Amino acid sequence: MDIFEKTHQFTAAKEAIKEGYYPYFIPLNENEGTEVVYKGHRLIMCGSNNYLGLTTHPKVREAAMEAIRRYGTSCTGSRFLNGTLEMHEELERRLAKWVKKEAALVFSTGMQANLGAVSAIVGRGDYVILDKDDHASIVDGARLSFGEIARFRHNDVTHLEKVLQSLPESAGKLVVVDGVFSMGGDLALLKEMVPVCQKYGARLMVDDAHGMGVMGGGRGTAEELGVTAQVDLIMSTFSKSFASLGGFIAGDEDVVHYIKHHARSLIFSASIPPANAAAALAALEIMEQEPERVQRVIHIGKKMKKSFEEMGYNTGNSQTPIIPIIIGDDQKTFFFWKALFEAGVFVNPVISPAVPPGMQLLRTSYMATHTDEQLDQVLEIFYQIGKQMAII
Amino acid sequence: MDIFEKTHQFTAAKEAIKEGYYPYFIPLNENEGTEVVYKGHRLIMCGSNNYLGLTTHPKVREAAMEAIRRYGTSCTGSRFLNGTLEMHEELERRLAKWVKKEAALVFSTGMQANLGAVSAIVGRGDYVILDKDDHASIVDGARLSFGEIARFRHNDVTHLEKVLQSLPESAGKLVVVDGVFSMGGDLALLKEMVPVCQKYGARLMVDDAHGMGVMGGGRGTAEELGVTAQVDLIMSTFSKSFASLGGFIAGDEDVVHYIKHHARSLIFSASIPPANAAAALAALEIMEQEPERVQRVIHIGKKMKKSFEEMGYNTGNSQTPIIPIIIGDDQKTFFFWKALFEAGVFVNPVISPAVPPGMQLLRTSYMATHTDEQLDQVLEIFYQIGKQMAII
Repeated sequence: MDIFEKTHQFTAAKEAIKEGYYPYFIPLNENEGTEVVYKGHRLIMCGSNNYLGLTTHPKVREAAMEAIRRYGTSCTGSRFLNGTLEMHEELERRLAKWVKKEAALVFSTGMQANLGAVSAIVGRGDYVILDKDDHASIVDGARLSFGEIARFRHNDVTHLEKVLQSLPESAGKLVVVDGVFSMGGDLALLKEMVPVCQKYGARLMVDDAHGMGVMGGGRGTAEELGVTAQVDLIMSTFSKSFASLGGFIAGDEDVVHYIKHHARSLIFSASIPPANAAAALAALEIMEQEPERVQRVIHIGKKMKKSFEEMGYNTGNSQTPIIPIIIGDDQKTFFFWKALFEAGVFVNPVISPAVPPGMQLLRTSYMATHTDEQLDQVLEIFYQIGKQMAII
Repeated sequence: MDIFEKTHQFTAAKEAIKEGYYPYFIPLNENEGTEVVYKGHRLIMCGSNNYLGLTTHPKVREAAMEAIRRYGTSCTGSRFLNGTLEMHEELERRLAKWVKKEAALVFSTGMQANLGAVSAIVGRGDYVILDKDDHASIVDGARLSFGEIARFRHNDVTHLEKVLQSLPESAGKLVVVDGVFSMGGDLALLKEMVPVCQKYGARLMVDDAHGMGVMGGGRGTAEELGVTAQVDLIMSTFSKSFASLGGFIAGDEDVVHYIKHHARSLIFSASIPPANAAAALAALEIMEQEPERVQRVIHIGKKMKKSFEEMGYNTGNSQTPIIPIIIGDDQKTFFFWKALFEAGVFVNPVISPAVPPGMQLLRTSYMATHTDEQLDQVLEIFYQIGKQMAII
């Protein structure tokens, strides 16, 4: 059979486009951070990961432009060969200090940081143990490793212990969890996981893509929960609070050095361009210098969650500026998404299999730069549509 | 056992650093394209993938800076959700036209284009057939797929046929090869592979990371060899001739649409920032408008190969501006690399297992912007050191 045959059979997306309920790959032509424009239609952005709103910060913009003036637009090669600038290493030193680890290593994307770190550390005979809601890049990193994969129920520490107990005592073990889960906005129970991992000789790695810059005064979820020293590897991305593209892993010197020389996604992929490194560095500097931004986005998250709950919405277990509005039905979720879009609010519909049936939701997320007026408008629109659709 | 134990045992890189023969991760603090600076030491860059020298082209720089002014420094989300700009789609339309395919799809890195495209297309029961020298990202894409992997000897069409013949006739088959092999600079025998693939109902995908912008008037290796219509999928990267970061896959509309909705490395990774998309677009425009750049880098490649051969160097089967200088011994390769570095020439040493024993080489590569004076200097230094080391 022609290997392309499956592509001709795939019609789901084309049908959704035809019916006008296709919420993906929406091409924006303006993006000022809190507001975006799609074909002349202005929307308040409540579906980004731009938590600190730094993508349009004058210092971040200027740092990126200055890097282009100084170094050009690309390093055209991997960190391993010709693509390392002193700036990449400076960024690594500053990141390590920020997350309170000995060393850090910068990858081309957050996804590649997970692919590379997990597949480098987990060798033949080792086990990698994943939360069932872990990000796809962790799962793929585990699949690229030569170790065995085990899974435990989402944030269920009792089940984690059961799984660890079932594995060979002598085998190397790495537990990998998201710090902040990207759809529910809930935190990993790191404080409870640490003693369990230690009991079974497992190392603990946290993907803090959504926590870094937001939780723990910006230093991430481990810091928020007071377990920075007990989390062995901290990973994060630059494409959220850091206002750029790329990712990093931080940990003990030896471990990072090993990953640096074994991660295929580092060695066989081009380094991030000067502008991307400079933007991440500038964002880090602003996190250090303007703690009020972190406070603001945390404040907004609490205010929005409280307001949604008062209206009667189910916001699940969110403890962050990611607030899911649980609708519980595919079609209703799409209808709600479309009504919001038309009323000028950009959110992301999340249906099964991304979430279990009954948990279909609208993912909303907030930025330090959202104004009170924008947020009030969002709440008002949610109230109107929720009433019309008899969801609240 | 502690899963980190292996990291404490890994000392090879530390020893090389101590002995002063560590050629990797060299932090540059200036990069003007053809010349770079390491700790105050100026070198002619003959180890980049900046074939057209566009990273410092005023139009590319300005396009990237203008994108930062207009859109900020990041899209903070995946193409799938909130990270698509009209500019990404414009880039896709222009790329498709450039490589003469119906559609194109932009990924965050070239690596992720391969991971996503190969793993999306090759499903359970399908076969993916790889050249043994294929890039790591193709191999990892194949490993992430749920299909079976088969391999054939480097550029050996007879062996490819034998392998295809051995596979179940009814199974879907995708043959994936590099267009230009990154270490040897040789071209895939696409013209010979096309009828063999057709005979066995296999589709053919070409990773043209090193060919795009250079071969076929800049349109790539398939164009160079006159088989564009017969190559089903063309992949390339932005981190080489396109002076940016990112990658793309191009092919028939249905196939690209399918990949767009099934590639995890697209859906679960942030889109390339505005500056990166703008740089790639500007680079594409320059390829269209300044064909003399392509001619120049091809001319330089031929001149350098001829000159090296006249001196007595073994340059293998290079047909591109990537010219390996085959040394054939690990230690000699490192000595030669170091002598070149000290004399002011930046190249990349490639030892086993990256190449088979006896094929250890210095990878040299050239740019359209290298001046004749720079090239003459490079040749002179190679001549002196080669004589001193009794290699020529």
